[in-house]
Amino acid sequence: MAIAAPQQSLYDIAVEQFEQAADLIGLEDELRQILRTCKRELIVNFPVEMDDGSVKVFTGYRVHHNLAAGPAKGGIRYHPNVTLDEVKALAMWMTWKCAIMGLPFGGGKGGVRVDPKLLSPGELQNLTRRYTTEISILLGPHQDIPAPDVNTNPQIMAWIMDTYSMHRHGGVGVPAVVTGKPTLLGGSAGRLEATGRGVVFAIEEAAKTYNIDLTEARVVIQGFGNAGSTAARLLYELGSRVVGVSDSRGGIYNPRGLNIPAVIAYKHQTGSVVGFPEAEIITNEQLLELPCDILIPA
Amino acid sequence: MAIAAPQQSLYDIAVEQFEQAADLIGLEDELRQILRTCKRELIVNFPVEMDDGSVKVFTGYRVHHNLAAGPAKGGIRYHPNVTLDEVKALAMWMTWKCAIMGLPFGGGKGGVRVDPKLLSPGELQNLTRRYTTEISILLGPHQDIPAPDVNTNPQIMAWIMDTYSMHRHGGVGVPAVVTGKPTLLGGSAGRLEATGRGVVFAIEEAAKTYNIDLTEARVVIQGFGNAGSTAARLLYELGSRVVGVSDSRGGIYNPRGLNIPAVIAYKHQTGSVVGFPEAEIITNEQLLELPCDILIPA
Amino acid sequence: MAIAAPQQSLYDIAVEQFEQAADLIGLEDELRQILRTCKRELIVNFPVEMDDGSVKVFTGYRVHHNLAAGPAKGGIRYHPNVTLDEVKALAMWMTWKCAIMGLPFGGGKGGVRVDPKLLSPGELQNLTRRYTTEISILLGPHQDIPAPDVNTNPQIMAWIMDTYSMHRHGGVGVPAVVTGKPTLLGGSAGRLEATGRGVVFAIEEAAKTYNIDLTEARVVIQGFGNAGSTAARLLYELGSRVVGVSDSRGGIYNPRGLNIPAVIAYKHQTGSVVGFPEAEIITNEQLLELPCDILIPA
Amino acid sequence: MAIAAPQQSLYDIAVEQFEQAADLIGLEDELRQILRTCKRELIVNFPVEMDDGSVKVFTGYRVHHNLAAGPAKGGIRYHPNVTLDEVKALAMWMTWKCAIMGLPFGGGKGGVRVDPKLLSPGELQNLTRRYTTEISILLGPHQDIPAPDVNTNPQIMAWIMDTYSMHRHGGVGVPAVVTGKPTLLGGSAGRLEATGRGVVFAIEEAAKTYNIDLTEARVVIQGFGNAGSTAARLLYELGSRVVGVSDSRGGIYNPRGLNIPAVIAYKHQTGSVVGFPEAEIITNEQLLELPCDILIPA
Amino acid sequence: MAIAAPQQSLYDIAVEQFEQAADLIGLEDELRQILRTCKRELIVNFPVEMDDGSVKVFTGYRVHHNLAAGPAKGGIRYHPNVTLDEVKALAMWMTWKCAIMGLPFGGGKGGVRVDPKLLSPGELQNLTRRYTTEISILLGPHQDIPAPDVNTNPQIMAWIMDTYSMHRHGGVGVPAVVTGKPTLLGGSAGRLEATGRGVVFAIEEAAKTYNIDLTEARVVIQGFGNAGSTAARLLYELGSRVVGVSDSRGGIYNPRGLNIPAVIAYKHQTGSVVGFPEAEIITNEQLLELPCDILIPA
Amino acid sequence: MAIAAPQQSLYDIAVEQFEQAADLIGLEDELRQILRTCKRELIVNFPVEMDDGSVKVFTGYRVHHNLAAGPAKGGIRYHPNVTLDEVKALAMWMTWKCAIMGLPFGGGKGGVRVDPKLLSPGELQNLTRRYTTEISILLGPHQDIPAPDVNTNPQIMAWIMDTYSMHRHGGVGVPAVVTGKPTLLGGSAGRLEATGRGVVFAIEEAAKTYNIDLTEARVVIQGFGNAGSTAARLLYELGSRVVGVSDSRGGIYNPRGLNIPAVIAYKHQTGSVVGFPEAEIITNEQLLELPCDILIPA
Repeated sequence: MAIAAPQQSLYDIAVEQFEQAADLIGLEDELRQILRTCKRELIVNFPVEMDDGSVKVFTGYRVHHNLAAGPAKGGIRYHPNVTLDEVKALAMWMTWKCAIMGLPFGGGKGGVRVDPKLLSPGELQNLTRRYTTEISILLGPHQDIPAPDVNTNPQIMAWIMDTYSMHRHGGVGVPAVVTGKPTLLGGSAGRLEATGRGVVFAIEEAAKTYNIDLTEARVVIQGFGNAGSTAARLLYELGSRVVGVSDSRGGIYNPRGLNIPAVIAYKHQTGSVVGFPEAEIITNEQLLELPCDILIPA
Repeated sequence: MAIAAPQQSLYDIAVEQFEQAADLIGLEDELRQILRTCKRELIVNFPVEMDDGSVKVFTGYRVHHNLAAGPAKGGIRYHPNVTLDEVKALAMWMTWKCAIMGLPFGGGKGGVRVDPKLLSPGELQNLTRRYTTEISILLGPHQDIPAPDVNTNPQIMAWIMDTYSMHRHGGVGVPAVVTGKPTLLGGSAGRLEATGRGVVFAIEEAAKTYNIDLTEARVVIQGFGNAGSTAARLLYELGSRVVGVSDSRGGIYNPRGLNIPAVIAYKHQTGSVVGFPEAEIITNEQLLELPCDILIPA
Repeated sequence: MAIAAPQQSLYDIAVEQFEQAADLIGLEDELRQILRTCKRELIVNFPVEMDDGSVKVFTGYRVHHNLAAGPAKGGIRYHPNVTLDEVKALAMWMTWKCAIMGLPFGGGKGGVRVDPKLLSPGELQNLTRRYTTEISILLGPHQDIPAPDVNTNPQIMAWIMDTYSMHRHGGVGVPAVVTGKPTLLGGSAGRLEATGRGVVFAIEEAAKTYNIDLTEARVVIQGFGNAGSTAARLLYELGSRVVGVSDSRGGIYNPRGLNIPAVIAYKHQTGSVVGFPEAEIITNEQLLELPCDILIPA
Repeated sequence: MAIAAPQQSLYDIAVEQFEQAADLIGLEDELRQILRTCKRELIVNFPVEMDDGSVKVFTGYRVHHNLAAGPAKGGIRYHPNVTLDEVKALAMWMTWKCAIMGLPFGGGKGGVRVDPKLLSPGELQNLTRRYTTEISILLGPHQDIPAPDVNTNPQIMAWIMDTYSMHRHGGVGVPAVVTGKPTLLGGSAGRLEATGRGVVFAIEEAAKTYNIDLTEARVVIQGFGNAGSTAARLLYELGSRVVGVSDSRGGIYNPRGLNIPAVIAYKHQTGSVVGFPEAEIITNEQLLELPCDILIPA
Repeated sequence: MAIAAPQQSLYDIAVEQFEQAADLIGLEDELRQILRTCKRELIVNFPVEMDDGSVKVFTGYRVHHNLAAGPAKGGIRYHPNVTLDEVKALAMWMTWKCAIMGLPFGGGKGGVRVDPKLLSPGELQNLTRRYTTEISILLGPHQDIPAPDVNTNPQIMAWIMDTYSMHRHGGVGVPAVVTGKPTLLGGSAGRLEATGRGVVFAIEEAAKTYNIDLTEARVVIQGFGNAGSTAARLLYELGSRVVGVSDSRGGIYNPRGLNIPAVIAYKHQTGSVVGFPEAEIITNEQLLELPCDILIPA
Repeated sequence: MAIAAPQQSLYDIAVEQFEQAADLIGLEDELRQILRTCKRELIVNFPVEMDDGSVKVFTGYRVHHNLAAGPAKGGIRYHPNVTLDEVKALAMWMTWKCAIMGLPFGGGKGGVRVDPKLLSPGELQNLTRRYTTEISILLGPHQDIPAPDVNTNPQIMAWIMDTYSMHRHGGVGVPAVVTGKPTLLGGSAGRLEATGRGVVFAIEEAAKTYNIDLTEARVVIQGFGNAGSTAARLLYELGSRVVGVSDSRGGIYNPRGLNIPAVIAYKHQTGSVVGFPEAEIITNEQLLELPCDILIPA
């Protein structure tokens, strides 16, 4: 997700969205007051030992917007421009996301102001462990369960799990304190392709509503990263004709349908879909104007 | 303490003070980085039921500046202008105050943005209990021990103690989680007059340095509230001649020494020292220019 | 359940039943001694703040008869005539009920001496929360799990869950401490109609034994509350002919079978089954003498 | 203390006393309601393995009257006639006793219906450990701290401490859970003679009020057990003339004052004070009519 | 398992096996160092009260080889020749066994140096409870979960569970702390026949590989204890022809296939398979040379 | 303390000493059995990250001999020749030492097989923290309280305290888990000179018995390290004449008494007492034959 610096902060936007929705459903004033704010906002400033032996102090956040439905659920992001307002907005959105799906979780989010690309693996581990130590008063399987987000991954979740387990459970591992951890440590299978698969679930439901026969539908997909390529593969397996796909270097087009497993393998080798033999090269703009039944902006 | 709105925030001032002190002692850069920031800053937004059945949302803070020397120690204030920056500054100053006295405590502070004079006793209790609930993840005899501060008092400390005990100890009372509670609940005897007594301890030490004989010294005291009247009484008991005292309505003067117990009784009855029979009425300005050996701005 | 005041207390009756059963199975004396008594009987007297600001003291009970098979399971009832002996009897019966079904629970029961119809909702909540506080030393997912009983309902279970969670788990919700809570808080789906459904399960088993074809059977049901109307609907869905039903105002009869969904809707509108168009009005006595294959005293 | 079976139960008497005192101080009705009842009354029925391998079920009690001032303090008695009403009365009296002395404890009491003289040491240990197990949900250094009472002693307190420590603290000893334990386990020194010493403290205060010179006073003591002989020895050491003492076999009299250490040694050898060489033998009735300044019914 | 006293200790053998395997997979030196040793080895010396009132001191062990994959899993054995080295070897093997099957458990093992046949049931219980008490610092559903092993059984597991629950959970039962407990206490169904059933699962897989039709296969089974007789019964139910079985007294043979349920009943009555009517008696040596498709050394 | 490798292990010696003492006091056999062994012996093998990034596995021990009198007390030593038998012997001796002094502690001891002089400060910290992690299941203010011993010091105790606090108390410092920590962290004042002061206490008692007037006594001290120089200074302050002292380089002698503060300053500057101006140089053998009233082998 691009993190621009808007005139309005992300949190202002989130509150504005909430007020509009609250108007629509006629939400009473008291609940508005409660839901307009975040229950808890924790700011931590913590030292990290760098590889050269020096110490730098970093700033991190962990916010709980609302816990009425269950423990807080929400990712932790590492980005040099993370602000408290951004984290508050994302925590609020997590409440809505969980509520819409009927999941027994409240909304939370966290972040550290750091450019992780400037850190060595050891420094990244040090930073993660100390940040986790500082916010561990909020965490727990029944309180707050982080997940990966921008610039964080299963390895970082493993460090969070280990640090929490060490501090709060005498070293006994507590897998339930974090999701998105490596499957070896109890992470969920299928997490990597969950986003793309979710897109296809949504398309299947929409196809029923609009009477689209997916075995005949023509599909165009903008973006061929994790989400886009997974959606392409799953639709291909359902019999759909994926006629166009693109990545940051450009797009490809084959009106009879692309051989998606072959495109995935090609991109794996060459780094792009562009140049795939059995297709015509097109621009990203052209891709968005291809004739199709389903267009996926992945 | 007056809480003006400076151009510079209180926190900016506190950091500037710290940097000057750090320059003087040649503090190394890494410790400066750590001590310049607050370890933890918790912001809570919480609903309170009002007497008319409505719900209002209030904002509170609890900050830990540094815990290296022991659990956080620092008051909780209720004031409509409390800000996070103010609380951070006060928490930092608590670290310095404890360290200078060699007390095994770190620096903390808390506050709620509220004008307590606009609340009924029931609302004040509701607000205190819910605020305590929200910050109770930080509190504990070995973690963080609040105390009274601006607009908070022993009764409020009792509610804090009870709420913490109810939430964190299954209802068993934990007196050690808060200081400044009623003596009936284990509060320290002598707390009320501690400030005035401390003033006299300081005077006794200074008198040794400056070779002042306290049994002959003439004392003038500006202010006759809790601190001033206690200091007056203790110096009177030491044999000093308290020749002038004042309160917001004006001052009184008797060059042979005032009968302080009688002055205290007089103020208790009439609301002011002014009019005390065995003394001459003077202005507050005159008081500050009376001939004396010791002047106490209480 | 009607709670008459028998010459013999309910507990005397329960012990007498137990002794008869123990004779039949030749139970050894030592186990008789243990099972004849209740392991723990807790009486609590607790103050409740009323809407007018006054305080009343109420008496409550929570009894564990036996925990050998697992944590105590048993309801909490609110009734002005509840006695310790009644609660002990009901706790003992819960042990037998769980044991007969092979459920891994022991027998418990609780009650408060109060007529809940005389309390406002706020007073009912105050009473429930304080009673829960007082008995919370017994409760817990692995110790004792209450449930609704006479005059208690999902809302009351929610207050119990919240109070327990607040006192014993630092405010983190513990859904497993109580059953019969609202489904939104994790309550079991289907609980409302469980009694009626259980009746039908029993009828289905009996029908096999007695070679009754339920699709042809004529059914009469005395009582059309939660249990009776659910049983009527489920048998209707199985194809049985429900020829007569009654409530406190009287009965109705249609030898060709009543349209049960229509009867339910009629009662929902009018408050009684009597007057339902496609049926003949009968007395409750006549209902019990109707020709039928299955008679349900609900 | 003799435990007769009064028409009125001990608890009725205790409540009546309370109402009289409440009238005298004009106690408000709500506090009366609360203080008239016991907060918690726990009845336990528990099996004990006897030396012949059989199992007997015993009934025990532990009552908390009021905990506002601190954890419950109160003894545990073993007696075949102990009733819940008696234990409730004694718990209420403990509240008053602690409050009058300003001790930070609430009132509690416990008991088991058993004649301990009919038990072997092993059976007594089994009974104590199982009773402790059953009431351990109430006990704890911050909750409820038992002590010896009728027919219980330091050895029994040691078993209670060990059982509690085993069940609630993983086997790590918790000396603070019980008083009256052996000094080797952290029991208080001086506990044995505390009653007699307290008598002498009271006499010393009374002597000041009545202008009695204890170094010349004539003292008569009825009873020469633990309390009486300790009081006799301490007064003897203060210089008082103890002219008469008695035990269940009769009394002795020496108008010049008895040599108390010698009397104690004589009773230790012979089992009675009667026959002590340097004194005249008198009846218990005569003892009560001896001329004296101080009469102690021990 | 026979526990001979090898020249090499079992642990030496286990390490040698490990080194060979590590060579084969080219395991890096640091992991070798870690995996070559046991993480924790606990030796306990503890007193046990014997039936005659005397006290004997026994030595027990509990070893954790590696916990990276989850809590320790491994049996507890009672044998007069158990040594620390043997327990360490068995703990290491448990790590490999769990890892090969992908189970989320680490490797552990325990033992007591005792010949349980020389103990009465009461002494066995005393020994088990005290041993459990001593090692309970290691146990727990998330730390270490024992199971039956040589000379230990479900009854002993029940004592372990109860002792742990009493010491570590205030008497609330913790079934998850041990496996192999009685099914009444939550033990797994099917545990008794699990070994024999596992043998048949392996045979079914092998049969697929070797194209053996189990409904026609001739089977010979050496040993007719728990594992052998279960395997025999399950293969019989699959339609295999079990032509020969044996026990310590000799073997029986019927080329048309034995009626296994009848053989089991016969052995139950007579203590041996030898003499079963519908079969020929053979020696154990002859059994191993019978013509067959599958030979099971049980 | 020199750690030679005796034919007999230290533990054999300790048991032999115990048996002799047990014979002398006629200790009953059952207590002998219990006291002859160590209650718990924990061996841990743990990886440590070295400065070059490699990992080495070390072996450590922690032994509890007996806890009847209270939590285990005993040091932790780092030495390449530490063995389990040595640690067991030292733990047993700690039981006797505490018991003789009537201290409420049991006997414990620990050690790691490592030559700490070969480790960098970072490696020493890594080793200490990981060793503490592994034995932390035994530690705690009420369970086991380590102290410095051979090659361990206040800094190492601080790491132990921090690691324990991090693992077992969520990062909240637990000073009571270790003694000999820096005074800044709550260590006892006077610990450094406690050994020398203890020597002088013993001399003062002995002087009373033997009627030696310490203000006139001539003292010779072999060894001038921490213990010897402290004893010298304290005796000097008592007025004794310290006529000879020595260190590893030789001794000095002044029959009129050495100026001990000056000798301490001289050794501080030069590294030895030899060469001190106001004294004659002697050999260590000569020192032991000097005429004196008190000879201290420090």
